[in-house]
Amino acid sequence: MTGTPNRDPVIALDVMSGEAGAAEAVAAADIAAERYPRLSFLLFGHQPVIAAELSRWPRLAARAEVIHSEDVVAMSDKPSQALRRARTTSMGMAIDAVKQGKANAAVSAGNTGALMAMSLFSLRTMPGIDRPALAAVLPTLKSESVMLDLGANTECDATNLVQFAVMGAAFARTVLGLERPKVALLNIGEEELKGTGELRAAATVLKGARLPMQFLGFVEGDKIGSGDVDVVVTDGFSGNIALKTAEGTSRLVTGLLGNAFRSSIWGKLGYFIARGALESLRAHLDPNAHNGAVFLGLNGIVVKSHGSANARGLANAIGVAHDLVTDDVNRRIRDDLAGVNMALATTLEPDAA
Amino acid sequence: MTGTPNRDPVIALDVMSGEAGAAEAVAAADIAAERYPRLSFLLFGHQPVIAAELSRWPRLAARAEVIHSEDVVAMSDKPSQALRRARTTSMGMAIDAVKQGKANAAVSAGNTGALMAMSLFSLRTMPGIDRPALAAVLPTLKSESVMLDLGANTECDATNLVQFAVMGAAFARTVLGLERPKVALLNIGEEELKGTGELRAAATVLKGARLPMQFLGFVEGDKIGSGDVDVVVTDGFSGNIALKTAEGTSRLVTGLLGNAFRSSIWGKLGYFIARGALESLRAHLDPNAHNGAVFLGLNGIVVKSHGSANARGLANAIGVAHDLVTDDVNRRIRDDLAGVNMALATTLEPDAA
Repeated sequence: MTGTPNRDPVIALDVMSGEAGAAEAVAAADIAAERYPRLSFLLFGHQPVIAAELSRWPRLAARAEVIHSEDVVAMSDKPSQALRRARTTSMGMAIDAVKQGKANAAVSAGNTGALMAMSLFSLRTMPGIDRPALAAVLPTLKSESVMLDLGANTECDATNLVQFAVMGAAFARTVLGLERPKVALLNIGEEELKGTGELRAAATVLKGARLPMQFLGFVEGDKIGSGDVDVVVTDGFSGNIALKTAEGTSRLVTGLLGNAFRSSIWGKLGYFIARGALESLRAHLDPNAHNGAVFLGLNGIVVKSHGSANARGLANAIGVAHDLVTDDVNRRIRDDLAGVNMALATTLEPDAA
Repeated sequence: MTGTPNRDPVIALDVMSGEAGAAEAVAAADIAAERYPRLSFLLFGHQPVIAAELSRWPRLAARAEVIHSEDVVAMSDKPSQALRRARTTSMGMAIDAVKQGKANAAVSAGNTGALMAMSLFSLRTMPGIDRPALAAVLPTLKSESVMLDLGANTECDATNLVQFAVMGAAFARTVLGLERPKVALLNIGEEELKGTGELRAAATVLKGARLPMQFLGFVEGDKIGSGDVDVVVTDGFSGNIALKTAEGTSRLVTGLLGNAFRSSIWGKLGYFIARGALESLRAHLDPNAHNGAVFLGLNGIVVKSHGSANARGLANAIGVAHDLVTDDVNRRIRDDLAGVNMALATTLEPDAA
């Protein structure tokens, strides 16, 4: 269980599961230790490997305990295979530390499906939440926004979508520092009659609920990148499609841009002269800058880092975990759920008296 | 009915419905008339307006007949409102010309919902097709690809998805000139067990069918822009989300790029020097270059131009209509459907003997 915001936060870090390796993971913990002086760590993984890395980072070593795990979840493992090894893997043991109250949040760069399955099995959903959702921060033309669910639930009903909106708004208040985030449901048109029955029912509930958010109704996919919305709520199928499409399109445009610069001597010269200015584009789109997806709705905080994140990226994911712990995001979610439970009951089940 | 590939193609052009206005539409027809010497036109709209424009284009005037319509479908009209005025609007009359066999294809830059509703009501679906789909050509890192459905059908079953694959492959063979296009279903993972039951059932049928395509299985959203797939098949909800997300992300990245160039004197100078090279980026991403979405699966060809397309963009949409007519895409679809009907029947309804 979480809910110890007054104590100094403890992060259970899965050192072994990322593609970048244990050295990057330990370096990331040191970056985070510098940024957050009250943070301490439980480092899960192969003890001799971690101890060797830790010897390079005395600041971190003073605030970290190494807990040996024999086994590692592979990127190719199925969730069911990983679940059976929850007690012996660095990922499973990090999550268990949160369950046991020894850590306030778990952070892993490993296999997403395995992390979701283990977290749900071990921590269970919060009271009032039917299903957890995967949320992340994305770059926009104005600054950043939150989108969820990114793939935890292939199909969602209206109740799920309403709960995702509550969780996403709480996440945005914590991570983006917004008092009343603008929340919208992702749809194929902005008119009230568009989309599925689930979306229309969820919109009705959110319109009537008293919540610390501005509910904008429906938005189309082009608003994900525009920055007009702070929280984009959708089912895990559409959310995953949108996330991956955005990543692919970003690669497409930057790839074409690279080709254009390389296409002539003038392109090369222009790039050389403008390269300092172009750094801001690279920095804004860098996945490491927005790293740290969160499983919201569990009895505990679990943060998923990009598998390929470098030390700086993983440190940002640890930062997200830090903020969620110190801001006690799960208390926010619990409080806000009270505001929609009545609306959910009366709108979606009018006959259930 | 279409199916007159040996006669010179006749295009029924809705001159009035686009945002760009009648002058651009008539200019577009002249560009297409220059490109395709055997093409002729029926121009639907307000007769005095079109006649005045036509006086500027003698080449087009010699190959165009003006048919007066009193009314225009507005961009804000609901499909039901438009349907009631099918006989008096330029859009409705252009579609009717295809139905009557007076034209081989209708082209309109008007209200998408109205155009879909009127086309379906007037032309009906082809034998063997349960629902029509909206398909379009998108830019990729390698060249171009086709995606469908982009929003005609919010929810789709396995049979719909299989039929979309057949139609999309036929479209790609015609418009992209590929002999055996690479076709894949859009999903939230590439593994066989991912996604909805409809997707898995559609994949099973497509794997077993003998069709003029390479079926690649599932792809994620990041492959839409990569160019590794020629035809991306999905339901209209996910397709619309993906299309709009791609548009928004493209605007996000190019917007950030513009900001970067404007951010310093070095950025401005670099842009000035590289601007010729950067033209290729602009050209590749220009929606006018890829203009012309198609309603596939009807007894007749209907092409939807971007509402904001300029004359060159609308001429490209007319070019798509020309290619679909001369290549007789509907015959291709009919032939290919025969190849999947048996697989559909045995795979999806094993008890229906």
